[in-house]
Amino acid sequence: MTDQMRRITLARRPKGMPVPDDFALETDPLPELGPGEVLVAVTYLSLDPYMRGRMDDAKSYAPSVGLGEVMTGQGVGRVVASRADGFAEGDMVTGITGWASHAVLPGDQLRKLDDRLPPTTALGVLGMPGFTAWTGLRKYGRPQKRETLVVGAATGPVGSLVGQLAKSAGLRTVAVAGGPEKCRLATETFGFDAAVDHRAHDDARSLRKALAEAAPDGVDIYWENVGGKLLEAVLPLMNTHGRIPVCGTIAWYGGVEDSADRLPATWRAVLVKRLSIDGFIIFDHWDDYPKFLQEMAPKVAAGEIAFLEDVAEGLENAPEAFIGLLQGRNRGKQIVAI
Amino acid sequence: MTDQMRRITLARRPKGMPVPDDFALETDPLPELGPGEVLVAVTYLSLDPYMRGRMDDAKSYAPSVGLGEVMTGQGVGRVVASRADGFAEGDMVTGITGWASHAVLPGDQLRKLDDRLPPTTALGVLGMPGFTAWTGLRKYGRPQKRETLVVGAATGPVGSLVGQLAKSAGLRTVAVAGGPEKCRLATETFGFDAAVDHRAHDDARSLRKALAEAAPDGVDIYWENVGGKLLEAVLPLMNTHGRIPVCGTIAWYGGVEDSADRLPATWRAVLVKRLSIDGFIIFDHWDDYPKFLQEMAPKVAAGEIAFLEDVAEGLENAPEAFIGLLQGRNRGKQIVAI
Repeated sequence: MTDQMRRITLARRPKGMPVPDDFALETDPLPELGPGEVLVAVTYLSLDPYMRGRMDDAKSYAPSVGLGEVMTGQGVGRVVASRADGFAEGDMVTGITGWASHAVLPGDQLRKLDDRLPPTTALGVLGMPGFTAWTGLRKYGRPQKRETLVVGAATGPVGSLVGQLAKSAGLRTVAVAGGPEKCRLATETFGFDAAVDHRAHDDARSLRKALAEAAPDGVDIYWENVGGKLLEAVLPLMNTHGRIPVCGTIAWYGGVEDSADRLPATWRAVLVKRLSIDGFIIFDHWDDYPKFLQEMAPKVAAGEIAFLEDVAEGLENAPEAFIGLLQGRNRGKQIVAI
Repeated sequence: MTDQMRRITLARRPKGMPVPDDFALETDPLPELGPGEVLVAVTYLSLDPYMRGRMDDAKSYAPSVGLGEVMTGQGVGRVVASRADGFAEGDMVTGITGWASHAVLPGDQLRKLDDRLPPTTALGVLGMPGFTAWTGLRKYGRPQKRETLVVGAATGPVGSLVGQLAKSAGLRTVAVAGGPEKCRLATETFGFDAAVDHRAHDDARSLRKALAEAAPDGVDIYWENVGGKLLEAVLPLMNTHGRIPVCGTIAWYGGVEDSADRLPATWRAVLVKRLSIDGFIIFDHWDDYPKFLQEMAPKVAAGEIAFLEDVAEGLENAPEAFIGLLQGRNRGKQIVAI
């Protein structure tokens, strides 16, 4: 067993899109285990868009990562030493390990994995992204049979589950994704009724026209995880009493104040259509997580839910994979194998 | 009794801000009364921002006014002839009379006025504007003691009642109004804790700074009846789980698609602060109107609610008064005495 751990730390705060030099790879001795603590050798690390927000100093829904501190994130791994009740060497667990080869965490911040499922599912379809889709759609989307749902980043881990859950609830589902390959994935793998390639449209007006064709009865639920051009395109297509759960604004992660993106007077649709728009952060809803697992884990185990994972190899490649995620280069849930 | 009626019709669809030539004054013979109908001599006509939307051909929450048709609107007046049960000559009534000296309406579309109150209150503080304030604040604002409310167009008939209702519920109330005179009105007549003059700020950033000083604990409820620069200024100041009832977007009435106004990435506050944004149209809520009257009419009669009315003289001056309303030249509820 090694006595060293590798960690990716925040070297400097990015301006707009992060670049590799914003991160540093550091090697440190493994810390001693205190009472109640567990040493985990991380096998897979989750990369998620929300991490971009943590790199800024700006006030957000969670504290920033400090300069020189390890990048935050959820991982799964194997227990290599334990001073906590209930955890033994060899157990597969998940927790907020950070971008690191090893993590020392209190036992009460770890959860043991169901060994009937691939461990990476705890990071994607059964982890935070899957739970976000399930919670947001039920609480804020309130889907009704025969309605139409539009979702951006539709092949991502959140969007792909939103689409499948809505489809199984009897809705028409329209994917928005970047490029023909992702659009094919959306319809063939994830079962969307239609897919619109946002890269084929230079402006909101052109994108709106394509969406209007894909959603001939208007849009009842717009799952907002993108912002920018897509939001502007969709707003006027919303039906009266439509709902817009807001779980992300990835188009605006790269620099908020100085963005050239705009949401012009299409905002007026909020009034005219009596829209309900609810921002939500999944961390507020963890109490429902057992209910989610109870409902979804058997479906995932039975192969009834499609999910895609993109696995990058090696902790040192996490920054590049993260930048690729923000640029939409991944196809499915972005994971790093440590 | 005259046998002629004068009416203001829509002569052409305005581009942006309406101009006098968009309207025409026509004179027609009074129509015959059918069974169940009432002839009303209009004494006061209400002018409201929503009428600008009716002048467009665009799909909105209510049908457009057709070219050559009388401008829509609520009026109060005296019954001069009746073939409807329950209405007699001399009764004071209110209904959708349009911009006209006389109206023929079915009795079931008229409501008799409470003669203990000035008839114009049926158009303002106890009419649609007052009911909008009362309904939207309760259903979508959900005010809690010690929270902070910001309202635009704060000396208008909606904003001034929103402020008073919020103040009496124990909130800190911040008015946004145009010019020092309206700001003084907001604090002295309507009891707002603070007032910010939006005309003193060229951009959203400067306005935001002034609002932040007036709302040192952040903003829990932003009553959205303006849009544009004010919305952009307020969004980042919202507190977590803030609410934004959207009852109007007056800044954007003058031309939606081509507006230079924008709501840039401040939209991200919707996510970060878990905001709830609910567009609402008062016409959906008329079932609650008797409850509103029961609660508010005694307070208005007792002088406990402050309200202001701007009365323009003469039907022929209605277009000019309406343009003034859209430009913010009125101080209180804009009424036309016929």
